[in-house]
Amino acid sequence: MDASALIASLADCARVGARTLTTASDSDRKFAVLAIADEIESRCGEILLANEEDLARGRADGMHPQLLDRLLLNEARIAGMANGARQVANLPSPLGIILRESTMANGLHLQQKTVPFGVVGMVYEARPNVTIDAAVILLMSGNAALLRGSSSASSSNAILVEVMKDALAKTSISPDVIQLVPSEDRESVRALLHARGKIDLVIPRGSASLIRMVVDESTVPTIETGAGVCHVYVDQYADLEKAIPILINSKTHRPSVCNAAETLLVHENIAEEFLPLALKALSSAGVILHCDERVLATAASLGISAELASHENWLTEYGVLEMNVGIVSSVDAAADHIARFGTNHTEAIVTESQAAADRFIALADCAAVMVNASTRFTDGEQMGFGAEIGISNQKLHARGPMGLEAMTTTTWIVTGTGQIRS
Amino acid sequence: MDASALIASLADCARVGARTLTTASDSDRKFAVLAIADEIESRCGEILLANEEDLARGRADGMHPQLLDRLLLNEARIAGMANGARQVANLPSPLGIILRESTMANGLHLQQKTVPFGVVGMVYEARPNVTIDAAVILLMSGNAALLRGSSSASSSNAILVEVMKDALAKTSISPDVIQLVPSEDRESVRALLHARGKIDLVIPRGSASLIRMVVDESTVPTIETGAGVCHVYVDQYADLEKAIPILINSKTHRPSVCNAAETLLVHENIAEEFLPLALKALSSAGVILHCDERVLATAASLGISAELASHENWLTEYGVLEMNVGIVSSVDAAADHIARFGTNHTEAIVTESQAAADRFIALADCAAVMVNASTRFTDGEQMGFGAEIGISNQKLHARGPMGLEAMTTTTWIVTGTGQIRS
Repeated sequence: MDASALIASLADCARVGARTLTTASDSDRKFAVLAIADEIESRCGEILLANEEDLARGRADGMHPQLLDRLLLNEARIAGMANGARQVANLPSPLGIILRESTMANGLHLQQKTVPFGVVGMVYEARPNVTIDAAVILLMSGNAALLRGSSSASSSNAILVEVMKDALAKTSISPDVIQLVPSEDRESVRALLHARGKIDLVIPRGSASLIRMVVDESTVPTIETGAGVCHVYVDQYADLEKAIPILINSKTHRPSVCNAAETLLVHENIAEEFLPLALKALSSAGVILHCDERVLATAASLGISAELASHENWLTEYGVLEMNVGIVSSVDAAADHIARFGTNHTEAIVTESQAAADRFIALADCAAVMVNASTRFTDGEQMGFGAEIGISNQKLHARGPMGLEAMTTTTWIVTGTGQIRS
Repeated sequence: MDASALIASLADCARVGARTLTTASDSDRKFAVLAIADEIESRCGEILLANEEDLARGRADGMHPQLLDRLLLNEARIAGMANGARQVANLPSPLGIILRESTMANGLHLQQKTVPFGVVGMVYEARPNVTIDAAVILLMSGNAALLRGSSSASSSNAILVEVMKDALAKTSISPDVIQLVPSEDRESVRALLHARGKIDLVIPRGSASLIRMVVDESTVPTIETGAGVCHVYVDQYADLEKAIPILINSKTHRPSVCNAAETLLVHENIAEEFLPLALKALSSAGVILHCDERVLATAASLGISAELASHENWLTEYGVLEMNVGIVSSVDAAADHIARFGTNHTEAIVTESQAAADRFIALADCAAVMVNASTRFTDGEQMGFGAEIGISNQKLHARGPMGLEAMTTTTWIVTGTGQIRS
């Protein structure tokens, strides 16, 4: 069977199975996810054995220790996966919610109601926990899942899918709603991305190059997740006692993630007072500095080592302890810089002026604006979603952290008594 | 300048101009759209002259009379465009609406607010009125518009864009928010569809082949509009006095549009009573019939001419007075047929049973389900949106008729007092 035919058959099978999800009650779906959590825990030993196969293959292939660690499962991580599933099971159902309702002059009654997408494809890398996280979020939102993980985790993913299917077999939900897509070659990904009409949505999770490939290739509607070149703008009306902790937390709390800050912009009117504090704090935290000319002069006068920032620097998502620092003349100039170099993810302003904050909010054009808070708060858990399938970096459908709700679409239900158009 | 550079410069110019829209008040945007309406009316003569150029070229090229009629503007149609713009101006603003709001345990205050997309591309065919309709809907929702119409309407589109820009020049909104994309070659479309990062959203409107091309080609997020293979299912519990008018209205009221019905499915328990009524009514209305074997036998016994429906027939959006008729054994069987041959647009059920309606709603998987009403009601105006930029045929972002609201995205505003993550 060629890859397209295979994907079509997996998707058809998933869609038929998904009827058991669509017609299930909220408590049926919850029960199914709880059954998955229990099954994961009770089959911990089997999962560890399969994971060891992936690890052995990785070691033999000379895989980087950091990647091996991402691939690794142990009892604690498996318990974490089960508990994560239980948390999702206990969230309110996102389905059947009436978003709008009205009665027209001709007596037609309109309701717009949340419903599942249907069949959702996930294309992701390394970490086997995504297999469980994604599947349970999709199940709770009524969707069937086509899971295409990394070939380096193929044994772990295979057992995790088997465990989930076995759990579902004990419930009213068809095991067909979870389908593992073979990960041996790239053809299966390509076929998945072109299965428009068979698959309703594809979500990529992983490296920038994986996401780029999915976005470029896919004819199935997709949600881009990913890159964050986030800025902290310290306004002329900033409270500097708030600014330093926000800056340091945004940059250094977890530099590898997308909501970490990469660039500090400082209003020129407070630069003289704030820059020495900021540069010392960053330098003490081990942050390598890339600065514009004025900031570079300040750094030199303080004996702090720094280099001149290139055009490339301002565009870079470092993911490590490096940061760009520049001076701007106004909120608008900060927004100009962000429009030129940002990625529409998270932008922070530190200011005590509501007018400055409002102007920044209107111009920043991003998924989340932080006013006097760390950029690190753009996160499903921190924002109270309870679960996150990814952070959308695009404007269509969902923007920012995506929870259960983002995995639903709507249908219009129009109820009449025989109305026709004249 | 090559096509990519041209599109990039138009998009950049539009984005800078769009700041005047983003920072404008609702009444500023309303005023701008009203100014456009006035300018259209006052420059009717100029518009007619330009349109005559397009018509002359069309006649010289042997354009089909029906297409010439779609291209034609006259005083009444121009007045219609102006009045349409006034209607949009008087709709409630879709911007600045707080969709969700909460305060977290750490004191962070969260708001999810509607904001414009930014720069939206429209790729469309023939009718010059789309140039005005699309531009004013995008303006009212705070977006800049890159308009790429058909080359056959190039003179009309050029004057309409000039008129709109002249109107905006008298307001606080920058004329740069409307940009005409040259329509001489296909390169400009290709460049527009690949301007990810420069353009936030592309919407195609026109033929199935245009929409397919946009969906296949675009790396910019897009919303598919278009095809409707809509079904009317007459359930065993149908009130037949409602069923006949709904059937005839769905099929014959305006057969060329996407919400017209193409297929009638009849529950076998009422087939004997209902089919003779239905076939006679369809035949009297001039509808050519494509039937399954049982329906064909009934038609023959009534002396009504019909042919056996092929696999191809069930998949076809006729757009003219032709219809498929089949018998099914249950609501689930009707849903199976719809899943196999439908396009997730509009599906109607005629039934007095709420249980049958609920099952049909759960299984139909479409933008709109009509319960005892004509399929023709899937329409922005009929559903009270006041304006429609198209009907979404996909599940991502918007489903069904799209009004002003569908042209917005959201941003999260997180307000703190110096909170950091620990």
